[in-house]
Amino acid sequence: MNLGDIAEKVGGKVIGDASIEITDVRSIEAAEKGHLTFLTGKKFLNKLKQSRASAVLVTSEQEVDMSQVITPGPMLAFARLLDHFHPQARPRPGIHSSVILGENVVLGKRVTLSPLVCVGNNVEIGDDTVIHSGSVISDDCTLGKNTVIHSNVTLYRNSIVGNQVTLHAGVVVGADGFGYTIDEQGRHVKVNQIGNVVIEDNVEVGANSCIDRAAMGTTLIKEGTKIDNLVQVAHNCTIGEHSILVAQTGIAGSCELGHHVILAGQVGVSDHVKIGDQVTVVARSAVFSDLKGHSAYGGVPAVPLNVWKRSVTVLPKLPDLVRKIRNLESRLSDIEKKKGEE
Amino acid sequence: MNLGDIAEKVGGKVIGDASIEITDVRSIEAAEKGHLTFLTGKKFLNKLKQSRASAVLVTSEQEVDMSQVITPGPMLAFARLLDHFHPQARPRPGIHSSVILGENVVLGKRVTLSPLVCVGNNVEIGDDTVIHSGSVISDDCTLGKNTVIHSNVTLYRNSIVGNQVTLHAGVVVGADGFGYTIDEQGRHVKVNQIGNVVIEDNVEVGANSCIDRAAMGTTLIKEGTKIDNLVQVAHNCTIGEHSILVAQTGIAGSCELGHHVILAGQVGVSDHVKIGDQVTVVARSAVFSDLKGHSAYGGVPAVPLNVWKRSVTVLPKLPDLVRKIRNLESRLSDIEKKKGEE
Amino acid sequence: MNLGDIAEKVGGKVIGDASIEITDVRSIEAAEKGHLTFLTGKKFLNKLKQSRASAVLVTSEQEVDMSQVITPGPMLAFARLLDHFHPQARPRPGIHSSVILGENVVLGKRVTLSPLVCVGNNVEIGDDTVIHSGSVISDDCTLGKNTVIHSNVTLYRNSIVGNQVTLHAGVVVGADGFGYTIDEQGRHVKVNQIGNVVIEDNVEVGANSCIDRAAMGTTLIKEGTKIDNLVQVAHNCTIGEHSILVAQTGIAGSCELGHHVILAGQVGVSDHVKIGDQVTVVARSAVFSDLKGHSAYGGVPAVPLNVWKRSVTVLPKLPDLVRKIRNLESRLSDIEKKKGEE
Repeated sequence: MNLGDIAEKVGGKVIGDASIEITDVRSIEAAEKGHLTFLTGKKFLNKLKQSRASAVLVTSEQEVDMSQVITPGPMLAFARLLDHFHPQARPRPGIHSSVILGENVVLGKRVTLSPLVCVGNNVEIGDDTVIHSGSVISDDCTLGKNTVIHSNVTLYRNSIVGNQVTLHAGVVVGADGFGYTIDEQGRHVKVNQIGNVVIEDNVEVGANSCIDRAAMGTTLIKEGTKIDNLVQVAHNCTIGEHSILVAQTGIAGSCELGHHVILAGQVGVSDHVKIGDQVTVVARSAVFSDLKGHSAYGGVPAVPLNVWKRSVTVLPKLPDLVRKIRNLESRLSDIEKKKGEE
Repeated sequence: MNLGDIAEKVGGKVIGDASIEITDVRSIEAAEKGHLTFLTGKKFLNKLKQSRASAVLVTSEQEVDMSQVITPGPMLAFARLLDHFHPQARPRPGIHSSVILGENVVLGKRVTLSPLVCVGNNVEIGDDTVIHSGSVISDDCTLGKNTVIHSNVTLYRNSIVGNQVTLHAGVVVGADGFGYTIDEQGRHVKVNQIGNVVIEDNVEVGANSCIDRAAMGTTLIKEGTKIDNLVQVAHNCTIGEHSILVAQTGIAGSCELGHHVILAGQVGVSDHVKIGDQVTVVARSAVFSDLKGHSAYGGVPAVPLNVWKRSVTVLPKLPDLVRKIRNLESRLSDIEKKKGEE
Repeated sequence: MNLGDIAEKVGGKVIGDASIEITDVRSIEAAEKGHLTFLTGKKFLNKLKQSRASAVLVTSEQEVDMSQVITPGPMLAFARLLDHFHPQARPRPGIHSSVILGENVVLGKRVTLSPLVCVGNNVEIGDDTVIHSGSVISDDCTLGKNTVIHSNVTLYRNSIVGNQVTLHAGVVVGADGFGYTIDEQGRHVKVNQIGNVVIEDNVEVGANSCIDRAAMGTTLIKEGTKIDNLVQVAHNCTIGEHSILVAQTGIAGSCELGHHVILAGQVGVSDHVKIGDQVTVVARSAVFSDLKGHSAYGGVPAVPLNVWKRSVTVLPKLPDLVRKIRNLESRLSDIEKKKGEE
């Protein structure tokens, strides 16, 4: 593939030699002769000048000694070319002889069931879907097309997973929500969790994350949302479209998140909280009450981001403030005392 | 089952028509004709008035246009009826042909071992216990009666699990505690963890949670305690009876929790901490030292809840406090200066 | 083994009767006749005096009524003796008949593959390595000698694991890093993660922890580092030698940690942060920017430990500070008013 072909593929324009052959895409530091790299900000320009890359994806022409492809989104173009040069590995279709299939299983075309996969009764699996070794798909589950379930995943009964979904190893979908009431002797009595989980198209869920089934109704992960590792989504939550939940975030029961919400790492959200569209919550914050959309928040409890940023700088100075107040008190007492003596 | 039967079953009293047939139980919003719902607080009374339910569980007679069952605990009655109308699904008893059984395994009556379960040597499993696909029960484990082990669970050797216990998918019981000492070259030397884990009756553990084996002795989860997803219980902890550990909580080594302790989501507890009976710690708090019983706490480090609630409201105002102190200092300096000039 | 043999084994010196037979090692409280215990600090001396142990490991001679072994590191000696009296259990070597082996698998001597293990193509496994039930070793992985992989572990393709490594149950190595870019319609587009994970010798990783593969290049866990349960290490991180990551800690992408770093429980580290050698970060802290080596830090965001310790004591007094400032303001206004009237 030459640079001209690449420019056409990503909808860009070549500055320099369109005929050079591109053999791979790489980061600025790792690129060699024949490789295409990308520039995401002026601050990397010096690094780019020292790069051995043969060409670069840029938003506007740069003063560099290599061919350039002008495109409004160099990172997006790079991601697409990465997928071209390094497509995600997929095992050959087929049902391994060690797979356990229940009754009334409907398999689409070119499905891959790897060794030691267990599929329950009344399960439907769409075309081109891949299930890796050791995963368990319980009764009455439905999986869409082109979906990838990695190893040792558990889907509890009646879970519904869409198309082009990826569930990483160890993910648990549809375990019972954490619902109890207390009896006359102070013992916790389980409230049976009779709902389910629905995961829409193009969702990705990271390793060992958990999405609990609803008490009644559905826990819903909407289209295009990406969830990182070790995340907890409790029963009856709805996570809006194209949202991002970074690692170790936990969302308590019955929360409603809008679309394009970003919860950074280790964020917590209390139960029944509503978070508006396009909200960003920075890492390590805790959301205890509803957040309006189109804004950024931080802190425990979460407040508007600029408020949190200012208040957090004061924390290490607190002992100093205490001293200043003591000093003010003593000076003021002196004045009051003298006043009284006048 | 008519409403009279239901009232008898939950120990309640019917107001209205006891002969109406009840076909299911539902939330206020989801209930239809023939369904029974429940009221937990006056604030939901308006919703109840608009519900299509045929009857309602209440603590005292309400002015609503449907039959009522008076009971001191509507939620508890509801949970029991939910279990009646929607009992938890259990697979048929039997040992699947793909199960791997070790030597000297003693199985009770009506045990279910699902496909691809692996059971080690010298394991005892009680009557009516169910082990789902892909779970591994290592050597010398003992499981009680009526216990459910979901898929892809790992029990390390010598773990003891009681009756009516539920372990959700991906739970790890009895992995080595995190114990090292340092050698002459600054390398961490493992302290072999030779203890075990004991889980008493009626405990439930959420998906992907971890309970480590004791260094020596036993890590103990006492009767009736409920643990949510992604919780860490370190070596040598004792968790008292009927406690609640909400998702992503972590308890370091050798802690002792009393009975009816509630640790809300993402709480952390330092090692060797003692927490008294009936303590509640609110979400996201960190407990660094012992907490007296019968009280509530919050914050990092945890302090009495009312103290934390008051102090937390000051955080966003900190920059304002700094300004006020500066203002006071300058005004006071002015006065002192004038005083000096007098 | 008599006490003289033990002293020789740990490089210590006997005070008292070297001929007494030692049958086990135990904690001070649990020790019985014939047992050896250890003393780590003067504060346990009273307990030791009441212990039934026959002998004790100490740093210097104590006034106790039992034989003593003087050694500079009683805890280290104890750990080594524990390993002698209670060596870690290892299953017999051999490949179980239920194991699924791919093509071109190279197995060392005395390898153990337990039931229902799945090994992909082009995998190499070193001498004496043990893989427990239900684990999945994907294509192109390499495992060293004397390594233990516990149950239900997943190694994604191309992961490299060294010698004497222990991975506990449910660990996921090499899942895709959390990398996306956004397209013209605001949808997240996956950046294929084409790197891998390398785990060096003598590393231990706790249950259900996750180490993601690099976007490009390698996520690297260096020699001797110990990782607790439910820890997240994101793509492209380098964790230095002999470091400690305590439970539920999360490290975002492209961080570089030095050697002998200690991150206590539930710590978070933002992406691209560099942490110097021998840094300790206390539990529950969040590191948002680079930390210089040979120092301790705490807080959110992390600051030098003594600064955090002082500031944290002020938090519960914040409402009191607000009152004091109000009081100062009103007293000062009074004075200013009177001044004006003079």
